[in-house]
Amino acid sequence: MPDFSDHLKPAEDGAAILAAEREGSAISVQELSEHLLSRNDFLSRQAQIVKVLEKEKLFSKKQQMNLSRPDRYYLGLARAKALRRLVERHGWDHEDYKIAEYLTDEMSPFHLQLTMFATTVQEQGNDEQRAYWMPKITNFDIVGCYAQTELGHGSNVRGIETIATWDPKTKEFEIHSPYLTASKWWNGGMGRTATHAIVVAQLLLPQNGEPTKYTSHGHQPFIIQIRDSKTHQPLSGVIIGDIGPKYGYASMDNGYMLFDHFRVPHSAMLSRYVQLNAETGALTKQGHPALVYGSLTYVRTNIIMHARLILARAVTVAVRYTAIRRQFRDRDSKDLNRPELAVLDYPTVQIRILPLLATTFALHYTGEMMYTLYNRTRDSIEKGNFSAIAELHSASSGLKSLCTTLAADGIETCRRAMGGHGFGGGSGLVGINADYLSKPTVEGDNWMITQQVAAYLIKKMTSAVEKQGTLPIDATDALFQNYLEERSRKSPVDVIRGNEMDDNAIVEAFKWRAADLSYRAYKSRIAEKKPWNSLLIQLHKLSRAFSEQILINNFHAVLSSISISKTTSNALRNCFCLYALYTMDTDSRSFSTTNAVTSSSLDALPDAILSLMAEIRPHAVKLVDSWAIPDYLLDSALGRYDGKVYEDLYDRAHRQNPLNKVTFNPDWRTEEIVLGSGDGGKSILAKL
Amino acid sequence: MPDFSDHLKPAEDGAAILAAEREGSAISVQELSEHLLSRNDFLSRQAQIVKVLEKEKLFSKKQQMNLSRPDRYYLGLARAKALRRLVERHGWDHEDYKIAEYLTDEMSPFHLQLTMFATTVQEQGNDEQRAYWMPKITNFDIVGCYAQTELGHGSNVRGIETIATWDPKTKEFEIHSPYLTASKWWNGGMGRTATHAIVVAQLLLPQNGEPTKYTSHGHQPFIIQIRDSKTHQPLSGVIIGDIGPKYGYASMDNGYMLFDHFRVPHSAMLSRYVQLNAETGALTKQGHPALVYGSLTYVRTNIIMHARLILARAVTVAVRYTAIRRQFRDRDSKDLNRPELAVLDYPTVQIRILPLLATTFALHYTGEMMYTLYNRTRDSIEKGNFSAIAELHSASSGLKSLCTTLAADGIETCRRAMGGHGFGGGSGLVGINADYLSKPTVEGDNWMITQQVAAYLIKKMTSAVEKQGTLPIDATDALFQNYLEERSRKSPVDVIRGNEMDDNAIVEAFKWRAADLSYRAYKSRIAEKKPWNSLLIQLHKLSRAFSEQILINNFHAVLSSISISKTTSNALRNCFCLYALYTMDTDSRSFSTTNAVTSSSLDALPDAILSLMAEIRPHAVKLVDSWAIPDYLLDSALGRYDGKVYEDLYDRAHRQNPLNKVTFNPDWRTEEIVLGSGDGGKSILAKL
Repeated sequence: MPDFSDHLKPAEDGAAILAAEREGSAISVQELSEHLLSRNDFLSRQAQIVKVLEKEKLFSKKQQMNLSRPDRYYLGLARAKALRRLVERHGWDHEDYKIAEYLTDEMSPFHLQLTMFATTVQEQGNDEQRAYWMPKITNFDIVGCYAQTELGHGSNVRGIETIATWDPKTKEFEIHSPYLTASKWWNGGMGRTATHAIVVAQLLLPQNGEPTKYTSHGHQPFIIQIRDSKTHQPLSGVIIGDIGPKYGYASMDNGYMLFDHFRVPHSAMLSRYVQLNAETGALTKQGHPALVYGSLTYVRTNIIMHARLILARAVTVAVRYTAIRRQFRDRDSKDLNRPELAVLDYPTVQIRILPLLATTFALHYTGEMMYTLYNRTRDSIEKGNFSAIAELHSASSGLKSLCTTLAADGIETCRRAMGGHGFGGGSGLVGINADYLSKPTVEGDNWMITQQVAAYLIKKMTSAVEKQGTLPIDATDALFQNYLEERSRKSPVDVIRGNEMDDNAIVEAFKWRAADLSYRAYKSRIAEKKPWNSLLIQLHKLSRAFSEQILINNFHAVLSSISISKTTSNALRNCFCLYALYTMDTDSRSFSTTNAVTSSSLDALPDAILSLMAEIRPHAVKLVDSWAIPDYLLDSALGRYDGKVYEDLYDRAHRQNPLNKVTFNPDWRTEEIVLGSGDGGKSILAKL
Repeated sequence: MPDFSDHLKPAEDGAAILAAEREGSAISVQELSEHLLSRNDFLSRQAQIVKVLEKEKLFSKKQQMNLSRPDRYYLGLARAKALRRLVERHGWDHEDYKIAEYLTDEMSPFHLQLTMFATTVQEQGNDEQRAYWMPKITNFDIVGCYAQTELGHGSNVRGIETIATWDPKTKEFEIHSPYLTASKWWNGGMGRTATHAIVVAQLLLPQNGEPTKYTSHGHQPFIIQIRDSKTHQPLSGVIIGDIGPKYGYASMDNGYMLFDHFRVPHSAMLSRYVQLNAETGALTKQGHPALVYGSLTYVRTNIIMHARLILARAVTVAVRYTAIRRQFRDRDSKDLNRPELAVLDYPTVQIRILPLLATTFALHYTGEMMYTLYNRTRDSIEKGNFSAIAELHSASSGLKSLCTTLAADGIETCRRAMGGHGFGGGSGLVGINADYLSKPTVEGDNWMITQQVAAYLIKKMTSAVEKQGTLPIDATDALFQNYLEERSRKSPVDVIRGNEMDDNAIVEAFKWRAADLSYRAYKSRIAEKKPWNSLLIQLHKLSRAFSEQILINNFHAVLSSISISKTTSNALRNCFCLYALYTMDTDSRSFSTTNAVTSSSLDALPDAILSLMAEIRPHAVKLVDSWAIPDYLLDSALGRYDGKVYEDLYDRAHRQNPLNKVTFNPDWRTEEIVLGSGDGGKSILAKL
């Protein structure tokens, strides 16, 4: 219905402002985009797939925030199925499928199918099992989930309470939940969708000659059918359901599952590495146990790779909006007719957004490094060389912790930096925030897994101390040996001299701090034999410092090797310095107590950061453009490419909000809620 | 329907664990509760009102997270009306009503009625206007909202684009929105509920003798009817609606409103301090303009008071759950049969939760101080003494910024410390997080308003420098004069000596740091005349440091004066030290660069914090019990008083989740979503 607001324009023309911002920077967005995102033709695939999704009504995000949680699951399942049909229709390969999931931007009830479900069968099934199951999985003839976590136990796999008892008479396993806390819990896609599950349970075998006594043989994965293929009801002896609303993941049916002496055949146990002889009852093991951790490392590697694009999304919205938004005139200006300042011109806004912009690049280069490290390690493993597993495991743990913390906190920092509209649905950050806040917890809690890094570093330092002067076997060993050699004569470095940052000194400082903290941990634990648990906070800080050093190192290494136009590489170098100095300033005392950086340089950090931000500011819009996040994915009035912030906010409120179609009765003396309906509030009571 | 899960018990008995925790501490919960929450009979009122609300089906929170956003508003309005009826039925006074709102725990569409709407009429209306409007407001005969913020302008009231042009011929004001960005925006209760609004607009008066030229006379509040009293439709010339889904505030209809040359009578302008003579067109002002800021200061004072109970809620959930949750055996223990450790026994969990527990008390005593300061200042103002307004304004700005940041970040820290279940709906932290994240932004953005504190402190320091040696006029002046006297001979203090903390030295250190940072700001701005905007980050840090000093000071002052049992006061003193040392450690370098604390004490902070946490740990459950947060308000499986965590999580999933009543069709080859319905996904498409 047309009304007088149709002809109103915003006082500030966001489109003109963004155009001027882009005009004002000589960075080539295309060049930088290609530098960042060329792997596997990401950019062209994304462009094609966005077009397909935008045409499908089912993939429209406009009303998503108005749906109830049950409706969000309906929609999630409808989209999951439609996506699979699109794969057939357009002949998409796996890479395309992943990009389509990324653009759809919700946890799909089918998400586990080709990740943990397929991977576990592929990696832990024997040849026969793989031959039987893999085609069904690839064709989605069955829908699978991965049931490891329980109500009472998450990270500690050894605490799993579900038992699988071998019955030598019937040659079956009996899967059973002895306690309520044994209930499988959180398992994605299990609540309403899956037909099959990998169930991780403690394997119990009868003790020799004593058929009523059992011995535990650790946890093993079983592949089992959980729902009837026609009625889709849970099989008898199984209770399954969706766990209900969560912080995020509305579209996903995270489930619970309990077993009552549920019997599965001998073939259910995945038997690539562990075999139970059905005739003799003997258990045999083959292969390297570390291989089983491969899929966890793979998942963590993906999470690390993904963090840059998540953070880039939040930063894209924040940079574009704060470049457009005006607020207050300069306090020192006497001219009352001067226009108000763009919010992004305030240092108090810059200090929240621009270091995060710099962080997107830091995350990127380390994501790339992890990808390479993962593939190299896999290749070595296939050749029977397991020596690099420890490094990969440590790096993937420490970086998963650091990178997801940076991204999760960064989304919220960006949201708050946008003031009031940042709290609105038009920010585009409501859903991403709710969903991404799972990441600091899943696949190893961010505080807990840093122990694995610290244990690795203490081991490396112990060995460096023991074999000082021998040839270093890897980069960490070289760092530690060098540290041990230098520490008595070390003096702190200047990372800033006058107005100049010294990149090499920066890298040096981060390395030294990491090595020094490793040495302190080694001293506390090995020399002074302090209890592990009393050191946990110190060890967590060590992991973070070591991982920061990895980010700094990788970013710096790229700067000296890329061939890219001068303006762009200058901007990247400023981002490197900003990320480094901001990180240093945030934990400045540790750079002082480890003797890594001079006090005068530490004092100079705030001013250096201010001037770096001033250098980056004119390029901010083009730098975020380079991340090539399509409007369809952003789903943000504040962050849209064309800058029409206010038009879009108004359109969402005035033309898309279903609540505005209903007239209410605010008179407290009556129970009627919708005016004229005489309903007495009954319709809402029925839903409670 | 009964099933085999009815007889299952959790492997860990949460109820027994919490009982043992309570048994293990000699703190008297009742004594501490009364010490904290006796004002206005809070505890007994709360106990009574909880009973009433728990009996009303409409106030059940069980299905709240399963409702769509439009349904959340329906429910919000139904509850708002029901609450008003409960007031009548039970003869509740205003204090009771506020407690009922607090327990209901959602932003009510009626929330503005007795806050900004009533307050503005009361404070800015003249006698006649108050006599006319106040009875209608108190009886809820009309429903009001407060329309100041606009689409294009939030904090900067001077940027308001809505105009009210005086027409001397008809003796009317014409309210008009010249731009789309002039649309009122965010205004609570306006979207679907309100019949009336306070509209803040730029007052335009014809220039003398030039009836087509106008001069702006600043922003003024107008009280106007916006919807028809029968049809509840917007009046002609007004567009109103709800702005749509947001990060939180689902139950509240934050609105937008545009005016098309909308005419209101002369009496619409609230005229206590500014009067327009309808005959002559002359504008007169009377009274102190600072009075108008009274309601903003009042709102900020309330926000500061409220922060403790918000944070206490999150900490209550986190402490109870992590005391129950078990994970991993001690790594140093060889005994494999040893039970797993309670998560709260890990220092890496303690360091996230226990400083926040300590912070709840720090927030409490400063909230009390603000309450006293506000009332004292109001009394002075009524006596015509305006000198304390500046201090109140500065304190309320700095503390609003610090306290809401502490509480908002604290909720999320608690949530993450609870691992997987912290991400689930049973945490009870989903809604509080979404709603409370508005607080760092509303009523003055937390980064922006710190400028007001810094400006105040620079002024105070300037005056202290100018009149050194004269009698101090207030505490800040005394602090600054003492600083100026001592600074040349000052040496840093030891806050820790051996294993002992020195409380007085701690207070001294926080004061000194605050004074030194004030002096640096004074030097940069006054002596070196640096541009204001270039100093913003430094000024923000100054505000924070000064506000931290206030919290420390107030907490310390109480410790020396309360009469309470030894165990309890010891625990409070440990909380004081923990809050102080944790805060110091977080920004340790500033205590070193301001010469406030010795390097050896700063080095000793981590160990001192560890031992304080070990002291507090046995009392943690009873300390949170003392905040007396009822289960009804917590609405948390993890945080419930009786510790039946797993039983409740399972019950919510298995017996309360509506999604589990529907059977779905996961076969991707068909478009059908609900099995057997043959719906082809149409029902979900209709909602998109």
